[in-house]
Amino acid sequence: MSDVHPSRRNEALALLARLEPEAPAKVARNLDDFHADAVEILLGFAFSDVISRDGIDLRTREMLTVAMLGAMGTAQGQLEFHLRAALNTGVTREEIVEIVLQVAVYAGIPAAMNAMSAAKAAFRAQDAR
Amino acid sequence: MSDVHPSRRNEALALLARLEPEAPAKVARNLDDFHADAVEILLGFAFSDVISRDGIDLRTREMLTVAMLGAMGTAQGQLEFHLRAALNTGVTREEIVEIVLQVAVYAGIPAAMNAMSAAKAAFRAQDAR
Amino acid sequence: MSDVHPSRRNEALALLARLEPEAPAKVARNLDDFHADAVEILLGFAFSDVISRDGIDLRTREMLTVAMLGAMGTAQGQLEFHLRAALNTGVTREEIVEIVLQVAVYAGIPAAMNAMSAAKAAFRAQDAR
Amino acid sequence: MSDVHPSRRNEALALLARLEPEAPAKVARNLDDFHADAVEILLGFAFSDVISRDGIDLRTREMLTVAMLGAMGTAQGQLEFHLRAALNTGVTREEIVEIVLQVAVYAGIPAAMNAMSAAKAAFRAQDAR
Amino acid sequence: MSDVHPSRRNEALALLARLEPEAPAKVARNLDDFHADAVEILLGFAFSDVISRDGIDLRTREMLTVAMLGAMGTAQGQLEFHLRAALNTGVTREEIVEIVLQVAVYAGIPAAMNAMSAAKAAFRAQDAR
Amino acid sequence: MSDVHPSRRNEALALLARLEPEAPAKVARNLDDFHADAVEILLGFAFSDVISRDGIDLRTREMLTVAMLGAMGTAQGQLEFHLRAALNTGVTREEIVEIVLQVAVYAGIPAAMNAMSAAKAAFRAQDAR
Repeated sequence: MSDVHPSRRNEALALLARLEPEAPAKVARNLDDFHADAVEILLGFAFSDVISRDGIDLRTREMLTVAMLGAMGTAQGQLEFHLRAALNTGVTREEIVEIVLQVAVYAGIPAAMNAMSAAKAAFRAQDAR
Repeated sequence: MSDVHPSRRNEALALLARLEPEAPAKVARNLDDFHADAVEILLGFAFSDVISRDGIDLRTREMLTVAMLGAMGTAQGQLEFHLRAALNTGVTREEIVEIVLQVAVYAGIPAAMNAMSAAKAAFRAQDAR
Repeated sequence: MSDVHPSRRNEALALLARLEPEAPAKVARNLDDFHADAVEILLGFAFSDVISRDGIDLRTREMLTVAMLGAMGTAQGQLEFHLRAALNTGVTREEIVEIVLQVAVYAGIPAAMNAMSAAKAAFRAQDAR
Repeated sequence: MSDVHPSRRNEALALLARLEPEAPAKVARNLDDFHADAVEILLGFAFSDVISRDGIDLRTREMLTVAMLGAMGTAQGQLEFHLRAALNTGVTREEIVEIVLQVAVYAGIPAAMNAMSAAKAAFRAQDAR
Repeated sequence: MSDVHPSRRNEALALLARLEPEAPAKVARNLDDFHADAVEILLGFAFSDVISRDGIDLRTREMLTVAMLGAMGTAQGQLEFHLRAALNTGVTREEIVEIVLQVAVYAGIPAAMNAMSAAKAAFRAQDAR
Repeated sequence: MSDVHPSRRNEALALLARLEPEAPAKVARNLDDFHADAVEILLGFAFSDVISRDGIDLRTREMLTVAMLGAMGTAQGQLEFHLRAALNTGVTREEIVEIVLQVAVYAGIPAAMNAMSAAKAAFRAQDAR
């Protein structure tokens, strides 16, 4: 078993805070409640190893994530999270509309309709702040 | 049945030419050979109705398409096409590497490995020009 | 961007009314609330460009749609809608049972179980009228 | 373990012969080479338990199967087989074109493009007889 | 149509009782309410034809099922059922944690997060007994 | 960006050698040719962070991986690799037959047929040694 890098957990949670300020506390508690290594392995891979890399800025990465989760259609809750994260990192509502329409091209109308529902929920959450 | 807009076919093929100069002749022949309306309906929706819209530039749209097809894992040939199209619209190889790594986060290592194979094929095709 | 055909929106909503009389008002409001072009692009493609075409009657098309959404397993809400639409266009409950069993063959028992739940909801909705 | 019904193998192969006359010999050898029970369990479930049931005729069932496999996008070889089977059970080329277009609506353009390729292969196979 | 083996229904429900004692009554009523043959065909195939076979013990089979449903991401309710069944057939919580982490490798972080939620629900259900 | 643990690459390749002795040289060259960090990030996560963990032995983990890739149906080449790896870590051919049949239950007959083809290729590769 890997003698994991001690800072991956912290790096991952710091990146997560950029996506949604309230997320690290909630997500870490949720994963710590499951297994002591879950934050480090799952979020460490996602956010410390990959998403925090240079080469694509965080705002564009969130657009890519929204497109992927919309096309896959198997993680509606996480699609909503990343739509809020997209708004929080500077993606505009107009761009989100365009991503939803593009999902329709590559994954079909039902996937786009579900992405639209998630986008509307993210817009409402932003309006309610 | 829709009395389809006469210019959708032309608009779609013009957009397709921006993705790969050789594509319109080949793709149109392939679809015309199947049904007279196939170009207009399938490519008209994809390229005339959606991808040519303002709001997201074509280069970023190709990044989104590569991410979606990589994550879905069900259209390897079209993933290769859109990787070439990404290069043709200004996406860098470094950015493509980053998208492949991001696919691993959201769709798993096998999806990323298949996207890597497609990316390497697109890089070789570009080198061979 | 396509200078879209003005009647696609109306054609799409007229077809949608044949699937479920209450649907056009609800669906159009839902999409208009998202983006002014969403009905025209998403429903225009689905219903005006494709589903309203000759060659396969609407009743058989709804059977195909139920089979596809059941097999894909990523759009339970829309599966329920199209099960109600199938009943509204003359598909029998016996035929729906058979489609659910056929989903099991091609997409597995869990997909069929989820399709069965959606079918039972559609049957109850029909009984409650 | 189920003391399986002795005639399921024969029933399954008889149904398979209606889909493609050459199929039973080839498919049975392929599965027998893997495990003695594979024909009986896999084809018995598919063809004896489900597809041979009354309630939907074989021709319509093949349309449903083509739609499902086209939408799922994970079994291109079997999609080609069922497209040939569809032609063999009386589905017309025009109907197959319509199913391919309908796949685009519910599963996206790449799925439809792959289904089109499989359909063209099935048409060529029929022409070559 | 297959003249189905009379004991498949009983065999299937007996196996289901080993997964969760309360399941047969609930599941059989749910399926009988849909169609008289549904238990026999769907559960007969799943549990009598396949899962009750020798060659892999039931405990390991439940680990495989949890991994498959977690990776597919399209049947969250059934994933929760099979996580409870895994616990009921001797799979440990530590093993379930490991399966969830392994889902992340092959199907991505969102699939693992959804599997984690289902696992936590199964753990709570076990604690509440 | 994570200041990655220096030994993850080596740990990952050592685990990979247990799956197939020839794999590390081939896989590392394939990934190094794509990006200097690809082995460390993709294989480091898969093999160093997760698969090498205690809690489930490597032989059972390969059974789980074969089940997942068989059910997902989007990575046939990697399914073949992991079927060879399963044989190399002590999974028997009888167990592989059972996993293939179980894939049919949860993901449908076409997924099982594709897994059977991959299994037969792995058996032939083992026979040819």
